[in-house]
Amino acid sequence: MRNGLVGKVDLAERFGRIDEQWSPRIVAAVNDYDVKIAKVQGEFPWHTHDDTDELFLVVDGRLTLEVEGADPLVLEPGQIAVVPRGRPHRPTAQAETQILMLEPRGTRNTGDEDASGTIGEWLD
Amino acid sequence: MRNGLVGKVDLAERFGRIDEQWSPRIVAAVNDYDVKIAKVQGEFPWHTHDDTDELFLVVDGRLTLEVEGADPLVLEPGQIAVVPRGRPHRPTAQAETQILMLEPRGTRNTGDEDASGTIGEWLD
Repeated sequence: MRNGLVGKVDLAERFGRIDEQWSPRIVAAVNDYDVKIAKVQGEFPWHTHDDTDELFLVVDGRLTLEVEGADPLVLEPGQIAVVPRGRPHRPTAQAETQILMLEPRGTRNTGDEDASGTIGEWLD
Repeated sequence: MRNGLVGKVDLAERFGRIDEQWSPRIVAAVNDYDVKIAKVQGEFPWHTHDDTDELFLVVDGRLTLEVEGADPLVLEPGQIAVVPRGRPHRPTAQAETQILMLEPRGTRNTGDEDASGTIGEWLD
């Protein structure tokens, strides 16, 4: 739901419209923060967001989140983790997993160093 | 999970530790935004946040969200709505309902006009 609009977003319905893995789609905005969802499977590259924390919430499946300097986290549905700014991290999932992310508008999924990434498109 | 720490938050476990309705507790922070959870039942007063949007995600139960100038929204688990800044709104729930909210740190649950509200305490 774009800024200023009133309506509801059904996550299951939105996930059902995603047919590409590792391609975050924006489903809601809170001020200048975007709520994104993605289907993920396999390993994503290690990357870092120097200027922002990044929240992950698992909706379905299981996400392993490796964060430099910490024990790997295994997140199941209803579990949240926040990667602190500046900390290299890598999400991986053995089976296809549905995740929700929260981060400032314009945050690229590959971090600050790799311009090949995406900031996510709207999934209205 | 407080800023800078790495760990996971299990929402079901956190909800299990809340024994007071309409009392938001902070479970995670992303930069200067807080993720809060609350158990709610009954009617909350109409209120307004002049300077911020406010996100609601229903985790369990059913939340009715009245927003001035819009049709009432009925949110079920896995459904999100964002109340735009400056829009009077009122959440109500017939049966006890578990909700997750996202808003800038320091946002008071009763809005800007009623100092009796709370900004939420940490539920580590």
